[in-house]
Amino acid sequence: VGNAIQKIAIVGHGNVGHHLTQHLFNAGIEITHIVGREKQKAQELADLVNAIATDDFEDLDNDQLVLFCVPDDAIAKLIDKIDTRCPIAYTSGSIELSSLPQRKELGVFYPLQTFTKGHEIDLFEVPFFIEATNDYFATRLFDLAWKISKSVAYASSKQRKELHHTAVWVNNFTNHIMYLAQDYAANHNIKFDHLKPLLKETMNKLNFQSPRDAQTGPARRGDEKIIEQHIDKLEGLPKEIYALISKSIQQTYSNND
Amino acid sequence: VGNAIQKIAIVGHGNVGHHLTQHLFNAGIEITHIVGREKQKAQELADLVNAIATDDFEDLDNDQLVLFCVPDDAIAKLIDKIDTRCPIAYTSGSIELSSLPQRKELGVFYPLQTFTKGHEIDLFEVPFFIEATNDYFATRLFDLAWKISKSVAYASSKQRKELHHTAVWVNNFTNHIMYLAQDYAANHNIKFDHLKPLLKETMNKLNFQSPRDAQTGPARRGDEKIIEQHIDKLEGLPKEIYALISKSIQQTYSNND
Repeated sequence: VGNAIQKIAIVGHGNVGHHLTQHLFNAGIEITHIVGREKQKAQELADLVNAIATDDFEDLDNDQLVLFCVPDDAIAKLIDKIDTRCPIAYTSGSIELSSLPQRKELGVFYPLQTFTKGHEIDLFEVPFFIEATNDYFATRLFDLAWKISKSVAYASSKQRKELHHTAVWVNNFTNHIMYLAQDYAANHNIKFDHLKPLLKETMNKLNFQSPRDAQTGPARRGDEKIIEQHIDKLEGLPKEIYALISKSIQQTYSNND
Repeated sequence: VGNAIQKIAIVGHGNVGHHLTQHLFNAGIEITHIVGREKQKAQELADLVNAIATDDFEDLDNDQLVLFCVPDDAIAKLIDKIDTRCPIAYTSGSIELSSLPQRKELGVFYPLQTFTKGHEIDLFEVPFFIEATNDYFATRLFDLAWKISKSVAYASSKQRKELHHTAVWVNNFTNHIMYLAQDYAANHNIKFDHLKPLLKETMNKLNFQSPRDAQTGPARRGDEKIIEQHIDKLEGLPKEIYALISKSIQQTYSNND
């Protein structure tokens, strides 16, 4: 406890930076600086948490944790700008620890979630994954995450990359399926709003049923006649996607039901 | 108001029958009978709402609404068993009104939602779609739906079929994408639970952002190099689906951004 992380400088004022800054501040952590190239944005965020806004790493103290909330490709080159006495952590899902300039205290503080500007999130439910160049620093990052989330785990760079990769495609693809439905609805004079309670319930079912058991519909039943009828009638929805996902559902339940 | 529907016999004791029976009862409607072939299941549901359980349509009075909560292919043959004085409504999304034996008061009472046994749902948020063989009966069904939902609309058989069709595939396909993620996670020693907060947030974004605007990821950015890298590394996830959905996302944003 004597060595708990108590002071943090946040680098970056994008969506991740905003959310982590505010939740860490609310958890009693002192936010010393917001470092960012866009002075006004950095200042706005700094004002929320009584921090100093700067675009100059020289302004940082030499003892606080520096937390990078920046795009993946900026991490490596920023590390070398930080006083070697400062511990550093970064929030990327896919950058491997071993690929970065080595230092005594370098770690990962990865929240598996999609952050949207201006939209509050229940960070306490968001899983954080921790990794570090030394075990003691890892435990300190773990304890820090524990202050803002109820779900904290250690993960190797390889595990984290796979988690991140799976998260990206499941998030992107479910969203794209919803986009296709929205587009189809717009072209058929259907209010997309009418479909939202259903979609929420689809997701809500994750709380009490596995997606495997929750599956319904013609492909689940293996009803090829109905699938073909539906594909014939599609206008504006990619028939290839309809056919391919239907085939994949059929295979799922014919192989090993 | 003098002609509001006040007495209903429910035919069917599956998921739809269970949910509608209880919500209508809670809204002050008298449930006279639960009609079903499985005597014990009908009795269990009837006991919850002080109704009579029966497997014989002769037991019904000749004035209550008869509400069919049965599979699509059972509707036509059941209609002829009901006293011609009874108004009838059914809950199917895809059966056209004109395809059924005609009678004076025949209508549609379609809730656009997926119902799961033993899982409570916020029916008040569920959209109901109404249609009937005569306008006055339609208004009475509309008023009935209004007692249990805040979202009630008239829809023709054609509109309802398209709504239902869109609902089925968007629900089935998002669920299957989640299943593929679950399967992938299981094969890669990833806890699927870690992905649930992300998926909930993906769906939650529907409240404040369109799926079109919410899209992120390599396909959204048109980053073909990353897409190819990801596809190369896929093991256990259908590469065809990954490639096809990625292509569809790229097309979405290249055509008319």
